[in-house]
Amino acid sequence: MAKERIYLDWNATAPLMEAARSVMLDALALTGNPNSVHAEGRAARAVIETARREVAALVGATPANVVFTAGATEAANLVLTPSYRMGKAPLPIGRLHVSAIEHPAVREGGRFAPEQIGEIPVTSAGLTDLEALERLLSAHDASTGLPLVAVMAVNNETGIIQPIREVAAIVHRRGGLLLVDAVQAAGRIPLDLPEIGADFLILSAHKLGGPKGAGALIARGETLMPAPLIRGGGQEKGHRAGTENVAAIAGFGAVAAWARTGFEARNAAIGALRDRLEQGMRSAAPDLVIHGETVGRVANTSFFTLPGLKAETGQIAFDLEGVALSAGAACSSGKLGASHVLTAMGQDAKTGALRISLGATTTKDDIDRTVEIFAKIAGRRKISGEAA
Amino acid sequence: MAKERIYLDWNATAPLMEAARSVMLDALALTGNPNSVHAEGRAARAVIETARREVAALVGATPANVVFTAGATEAANLVLTPSYRMGKAPLPIGRLHVSAIEHPAVREGGRFAPEQIGEIPVTSAGLTDLEALERLLSAHDASTGLPLVAVMAVNNETGIIQPIREVAAIVHRRGGLLLVDAVQAAGRIPLDLPEIGADFLILSAHKLGGPKGAGALIARGETLMPAPLIRGGGQEKGHRAGTENVAAIAGFGAVAAWARTGFEARNAAIGALRDRLEQGMRSAAPDLVIHGETVGRVANTSFFTLPGLKAETGQIAFDLEGVALSAGAACSSGKLGASHVLTAMGQDAKTGALRISLGATTTKDDIDRTVEIFAKIAGRRKISGEAA
Repeated sequence: MAKERIYLDWNATAPLMEAARSVMLDALALTGNPNSVHAEGRAARAVIETARREVAALVGATPANVVFTAGATEAANLVLTPSYRMGKAPLPIGRLHVSAIEHPAVREGGRFAPEQIGEIPVTSAGLTDLEALERLLSAHDASTGLPLVAVMAVNNETGIIQPIREVAAIVHRRGGLLLVDAVQAAGRIPLDLPEIGADFLILSAHKLGGPKGAGALIARGETLMPAPLIRGGGQEKGHRAGTENVAAIAGFGAVAAWARTGFEARNAAIGALRDRLEQGMRSAAPDLVIHGETVGRVANTSFFTLPGLKAETGQIAFDLEGVALSAGAACSSGKLGASHVLTAMGQDAKTGALRISLGATTTKDDIDRTVEIFAKIAGRRKISGEAA
Repeated sequence: MAKERIYLDWNATAPLMEAARSVMLDALALTGNPNSVHAEGRAARAVIETARREVAALVGATPANVVFTAGATEAANLVLTPSYRMGKAPLPIGRLHVSAIEHPAVREGGRFAPEQIGEIPVTSAGLTDLEALERLLSAHDASTGLPLVAVMAVNNETGIIQPIREVAAIVHRRGGLLLVDAVQAAGRIPLDLPEIGADFLILSAHKLGGPKGAGALIARGETLMPAPLIRGGGQEKGHRAGTENVAAIAGFGAVAAWARTGFEARNAAIGALRDRLEQGMRSAAPDLVIHGETVGRVANTSFFTLPGLKAETGQIAFDLEGVALSAGAACSSGKLGASHVLTAMGQDAKTGALRISLGATTTKDDIDRTVEIFAKIAGRRKISGEAA
């Protein structure tokens, strides 16, 4: 009989946690449109507002400043625009600066024209280059509008935690706005929007263990907001038109509440498993390169290169052995290519890297079996490598 | 004990049909991201592609030309742009002409500037004014780009079926493109994209009995497409970035398949109930005005004005008596105002109108109880009206 598969690709999408699933089933049984004023409509509306409070609480935000979207990519496209308003007055943004390791949803720049987008380099350690950021912002031409800076809190491939507070201090000293993609950070590191000092945060439900189909743009205040991306209805205070996905939003709220509960113990347990994995893999292949090992990473992610094993080949080999992991990010619709993150870190990206990402239901047995499979695959590589 | 409530607001949102619910539960149990190449990813991908075939089949389209979105409003914002491509060549659109009775998601014009948007009037019977359309297109300045025309197949408030084939003939004779909002038509009248002759159709899952959170833009061909609205990932062939909402798309596919099965018998049964409702209401209040009664309507919708009863007051009265219905559309986030549809039909919109919309699980008992409640409310109105 086939062994159960091992899912270690939580950064691509997390399995749906039971806390989210059960409220979704309740929400799917509701009849009304949350914009209807009758009892059925009000019941659906109440579910959304409960979720809004839970999602806000996860990041220390004010519920009224949470705009629900269909996902983090939509939220990125909403916030990445040259067209803002401060209350009723237009407030133009002159230039977008994105870190070189941002997710493609942010790197593409949403509604900015390509010539309005600049890149902030990262150090070879995979951290946002603060001196370069300072230089870029000091050279900003204020006559074009404010600068908008996008730096993610945690990189999706390496798991490296970015120096967001330092970034925020520089951006605000230079009169700019800061967007923090917190998709991979939420539930993994403490996030407090006022303390971080970001102007906007982006979250995704499905990376947290909630459903696909819900995300949020969370603003620090309520007066400074981007021009809507999706228009034609008054939902979300006019910031996002369209009937709300009540069940997905309900699941998002539930998983946000779940993520706050037992946060430290869960991440400590996941971190111990990740360390066990890396020790096991290194014993089997001492030449293993673990990216970001020497800087702060979230507890669940291991991004590594095994010399002589191409990432695509490795991924297929693990898949055939029953382990789901990824070669870079999942978001490029099956397109495999050199990791822009490794390239930005100045690494040779030809071999590529494999990403193992753990989650709340990962077990010690999953890890031990994965180490065994790793040793088998690494062994095959040695034979073919040494024969050359 | 309180009687069970009666839900007659299917045009705002339909209850989730069991056919959709059961495939959604299966899809929620899948672990993978549909963009991952491992087995879990491929399983999620397969669910999406099955749904794509089912949704395409509902409207006689080619599956490859279905772009899934988070809903019809997003689909409208995707297709409503001056920026198109024919293959790799840019194809500008110079002007958008929307019928005066379009849903706000279309009327607001998406990415068109307000000065690029014109209105096609409707006749007092509530039908698109074909002569006016002809005049508008003959006056179109081709140097600005092609004209894009948006006419809905079925109006969401009145249920009146629009002369889409005639509209398509005029639009194409004049070298324009036609977008048909088929949100309220799908499942209620036969829809065949090649036969209609539309260039684009918009569908919504939740109006059909599927989940909130899924919609589609369906193109007649694959070469002529609007600039993406949501960028930053290769999903949906680059037409819509972001991790797909697998469960909602699965439910959309399932309800599309369900809608095709037993289509005629179901609509005949719903039509008989609607006629019973209108006969009952008219017996109780002979001065009842039923909008669109003399032209073709879908079987499930009744839109009526009861002289002396303001729509908002009527809606609250029905809600208190246990009946969910609506005063105009639900989509304006609780904002009640004069119906733009009644205004466009040249009717006095001050009193407003109530919309009762039925669906597959509406029963004769629901209708008979609703007629009783209507008679009670209408009776109260007469007393206060006659005292004046």
